[in-house]
Amino acid sequence: MEKLSDKEIKFDANGLVPAIVQDVVSNQVLMMAYMNAESLKLTLEQGETWFWSRSRSELWHKGATSGNIQKVVEVRVDCDADTLLVLVNPAGAACHTGEHSCFYRKI
Amino acid sequence: MEKLSDKEIKFDANGLVPAIVQDVVSNQVLMMAYMNAESLKLTLEQGETWFWSRSRSELWHKGATSGNIQKVVEVRVDCDADTLLVLVNPAGAACHTGEHSCFYRKI
Repeated sequence: MEKLSDKEIKFDANGLVPAIVQDVVSNQVLMMAYMNAESLKLTLEQGETWFWSRSRSELWHKGATSGNIQKVVEVRVDCDADTLLVLVNPAGAACHTGEHSCFYRKI
Repeated sequence: MEKLSDKEIKFDANGLVPAIVQDVVSNQVLMMAYMNAESLKLTLEQGETWFWSRSRSELWHKGATSGNIQKVVEVRVDCDADTLLVLVNPAGAACHTGEHSCFYRKI
């Protein structure tokens, strides 16, 4: 697979990039959240997902309080380099509701 | 699966919601694009994906020119009702580069 440097990621006007999180084993899409440059750096360095919480305006280490951390296997980038796909092994539920995936409802 | 009305979707300040597109058979994440209320309505009515092109500022019927339409099987909504997961049967490549998925590179 072709490689891209994290310096080539195109963050939006707020310095954020959407990050889709997918279970690498089941292929279930678990959640989508936003990363800034620092949370992407921490994710790559520590091998666990870090995001930027837009509601709390702070870095957010997924699972820091719930224990449901996500071990990162690979970070993929789309053709425009403005969306990430993070393949993980989750330690538990991705959703704060306790659901395994945040996408537990349909229209 | 719990149901939600499309009227409950929370569009952002620009009237958009991110829509992750996933192949319902292979479970591969194909692309992410944005929908406004009208493109979501068209998607639900026609059973094919419609988006809002932020670069061209126009409605965009996926596959209208390339032939690579995406037949919609289900539209899921996340816990915050501000992100969609669209399960599709794709007629061809999702990416304008010709790649099957837009996520063909990794960091």
